Amino acid sequence: MNSLKLSGRHLLRIADLSTDEIMGLINTAERFLEISEREIKKVPTLRGKTVVNLFFEPSTRTRTSFEIAGKRLSADVINISVQASSVSKGETFKDTVLNIAAMRPDVIVVRHSSPGAALYASQIAGCSVINGGDGAHAHPTQALLDLMTIHMHKKRFENLKVSIVGDILHSRVARSDINALSRLKADITLCAPPTLLPKRSEVFGARVTHSIEEAVADADVIMMLRIQQERMAQGLFPSLREYAEYFCLTPKVMEKAKKDVIIMHPGPINRGVEISAEVADGPYSLILYQVTHGVAMRMAALYLLCVGEG
Amino acid sequence: MNSLKLSGRHLLRIADLSTDEIMGLINTAERFLEISEREIKKVPTLRGKTVVNLFFEPSTRTRTSFEIAGKRLSADVINISVQASSVSKGETFKDTVLNIAAMRPDVIVVRHSSPGAALYASQIAGCSVINGGDGAHAHPTQALLDLMTIHMHKKRFENLKVSIVGDILHSRVARSDINALSRLKADITLCAPPTLLPKRSEVFGARVTHSIEEAVADADVIMMLRIQQERMAQGLFPSLREYAEYFCLTPKVMEKAKKDVIIMHPGPINRGVEISAEVADGPYSLILYQVTHGVAMRMAALYLLCVGEG
Amino acid sequence: MNSLKLSGRHLLRIADLSTDEIMGLINTAERFLEISEREIKKVPTLRGKTVVNLFFEPSTRTRTSFEIAGKRLSADVINISVQASSVSKGETFKDTVLNIAAMRPDVIVVRHSSPGAALYASQIAGCSVINGGDGAHAHPTQALLDLMTIHMHKKRFENLKVSIVGDILHSRVARSDINALSRLKADITLCAPPTLLPKRSEVFGARVTHSIEEAVADADVIMMLRIQQERMAQGLFPSLREYAEYFCLTPKVMEKAKKDVIIMHPGPINRGVEISAEVADGPYSLILYQVTHGVAMRMAALYLLCVGEG
Repeated sequence: MNSLKLSGRHLLRIADLSTDEIMGLINTAERFLEISEREIKKVPTLRGKTVVNLFFEPSTRTRTSFEIAGKRLSADVINISVQASSVSKGETFKDTVLNIAAMRPDVIVVRHSSPGAALYASQIAGCSVINGGDGAHAHPTQALLDLMTIHMHKKRFENLKVSIVGDILHSRVARSDINALSRLKADITLCAPPTLLPKRSEVFGARVTHSIEEAVADADVIMMLRIQQERMAQGLFPSLREYAEYFCLTPKVMEKAKKDVIIMHPGPINRGVEISAEVADGPYSLILYQVTHGVAMRMAALYLLCVGEG
Repeated sequence: MNSLKLSGRHLLRIADLSTDEIMGLINTAERFLEISEREIKKVPTLRGKTVVNLFFEPSTRTRTSFEIAGKRLSADVINISVQASSVSKGETFKDTVLNIAAMRPDVIVVRHSSPGAALYASQIAGCSVINGGDGAHAHPTQALLDLMTIHMHKKRFENLKVSIVGDILHSRVARSDINALSRLKADITLCAPPTLLPKRSEVFGARVTHSIEEAVADADVIMMLRIQQERMAQGLFPSLREYAEYFCLTPKVMEKAKKDVIIMHPGPINRGVEISAEVADGPYSLILYQVTHGVAMRMAALYLLCVGEG
Repeated sequence: MNSLKLSGRHLLRIADLSTDEIMGLINTAERFLEISEREIKKVPTLRGKTVVNLFFEPSTRTRTSFEIAGKRLSADVINISVQASSVSKGETFKDTVLNIAAMRPDVIVVRHSSPGAALYASQIAGCSVINGGDGAHAHPTQALLDLMTIHMHKKRFENLKVSIVGDILHSRVARSDINALSRLKADITLCAPPTLLPKRSEVFGARVTHSIEEAVADADVIMMLRIQQERMAQGLFPSLREYAEYFCLTPKVMEKAKKDVIIMHPGPINRGVEISAEVADGPYSLILYQVTHGVAMRMAALYLLCVGEG
């Protein structure tokens, strides 16, 4: 792994990372996973480093995951929640970032509703920036923890059959996952109503189906996506009930699945809409492991950006 | 105290604790009290432990008390404030707890408006849960700090005359205090308008009076409760002014009291409603000591749940 | 510096400090500045001390600056944001301060919209209080970081020509700066529309002009102040555009300035209103250095109040 030099760089989107770098992050995160299982869940690795969570939209789970990750590495973590109101008070995104940067953090985690916000922050901050989600664009640590979860349970990506089911069009996670999985030579199937699929040209030659039974049939990995109710208002599907009738992952649909399939979901889940409670809480589900892996992956990202080699 | 084994357990309500365990918590908290008086207010006891304050309703004082308690023991403390809005976004209480638990905290302090929320969290979290207040049901660390305050000043509970005055019906603290004090063989008097008293069957044989003079007369301990203005809207008493006329602890009422009486109040106080400013700030009042003791009691609770014997 | 005894005292307003104490704070802050440039940005100086940021109005930048300052000195920092709503719930400012104080912090940083709030807190808290801004009254750490910035770049105050431009009437920073600079024997010019100037008697014999060109002409230091849009509604100036036409610091105005002038602004800036983007981001601007210096000055203040000599 001596080719893994992320120190002083940024983590903005999966497409910026080489496959070596992706594997380096996964391997580092898998090593860090054990720290959270210890009696004393803390190592001094990032003592004296300052991590700022700069969140322009609320996201309790992502913020908490980065905060716990930073603290388990002994970094100082500062949470900043910028409401729409105070931005309207006159300070630009640029000035907010420049001001925080002037306080000399080592890493700024930026969460913002506008695509490109984290990229822009990285160009002006003078320190490492992690994209903690920028609109529908990218959310690389979520994609990386998905890959880590697959890697831990399947030990390979090549020729692995991965089915992604749900609102692919609006999912920043789906885009990042598709990009990485196709580069890692997985065999991808996308499943959604036609209104929730991206353009053909954007899906990297993945197979497309509108039948969840077909998507599930011989998948090694099923990645479910969250349905956002606001899409219904936009007329992209008629009702949650009708969506669920065709695309919910139920025990009945699971009868078609392989016995060693794994089920993932980036959360928060809508029980009974895109996934039934029985399946979400059932034996194939790795949904909560993803959360555990998320802390380890954020530890890996903070560590590699601050300190260096994997 | 080698019978005190709380490690890995929960702290949900006073009724779950044996009197030995209550005394063990009090003794441990009394030992911890001194840490907050040192020049260096910090011990490494819980280094590498993660404490999550998971608050579904705001409570600055309880949250701050747990946060300071955790940090003085060198734990990492993460504050999560869940607004009604984000719960309405679709994630259930269950999923929120499961997600936080998947990040491997050692203790989750749950504050929620619904009775039973902390109990349910304890059944699914896989780590220790402390009830930081669940509706009108229980708030055990508040009850324990009350007991600690009594113990520090009176050195005993048996045959101690304790009068509890105010909105006993809606007070989670009162229920817990009554439970513990009656088991510790204190002699309890309850004083309130009939509309703010619980049913006879729930008060463990305590004496009941509607006269504050009578309640105060030969009490060793007077515990005042907070009047919540929203009860007035429910028609439970006519006005704050009329309530104050009959049930406010004033210097005049205090003329009836013993010279070594102590006055307590869980806070926040309504000056001039249930307690006059002169009495709240006066020589018998231990109200601010209760706050100081609260930090020590939360240190004791975190310590005993995480590490073990008292 | 052995005359600098701030330990156990408060930092409420510049006028309370002797010039020796001001210089002691500046010298201490200049020494601390280097810590934030290290690989390991942390010293154990305030380990086991508790700093509470008690903010009754939001101020992300001031809160963040104190939080980072405290953490780089290894203090435990607790943030408390008190909304108007919970104050209306019945607890007075007094009781909130007394309660926090009962948890035994070493320093409380108070931010409040009412002049005198920090002073009152200091009279009842029993620990050191720092005024983090109280209405239009005082904001001493901001004034001190301004002085530090001048000192670092000009090495002296005596006979230094300092022009302060903008809404001097409503600026807590301007008042503190004018007080300190006049005591340090700087040569002060104030520049604003007549409606935004304080009374003659309050400006310590400073020169007054309504022409920004004149204010800039032979200044060594230009301190720009933020225009608050709400002043417009009060009829104090007709429009932001008209204000900008006469008082904006533009490249054209800067043609009149000395080649070694420095430009400061307490932030957040209104680009294109009181200062143009080119000037704010240009070579004379020290605006972001002020933010960096702010962390060092707050480290100095926390250190000197908690530990002692400079």
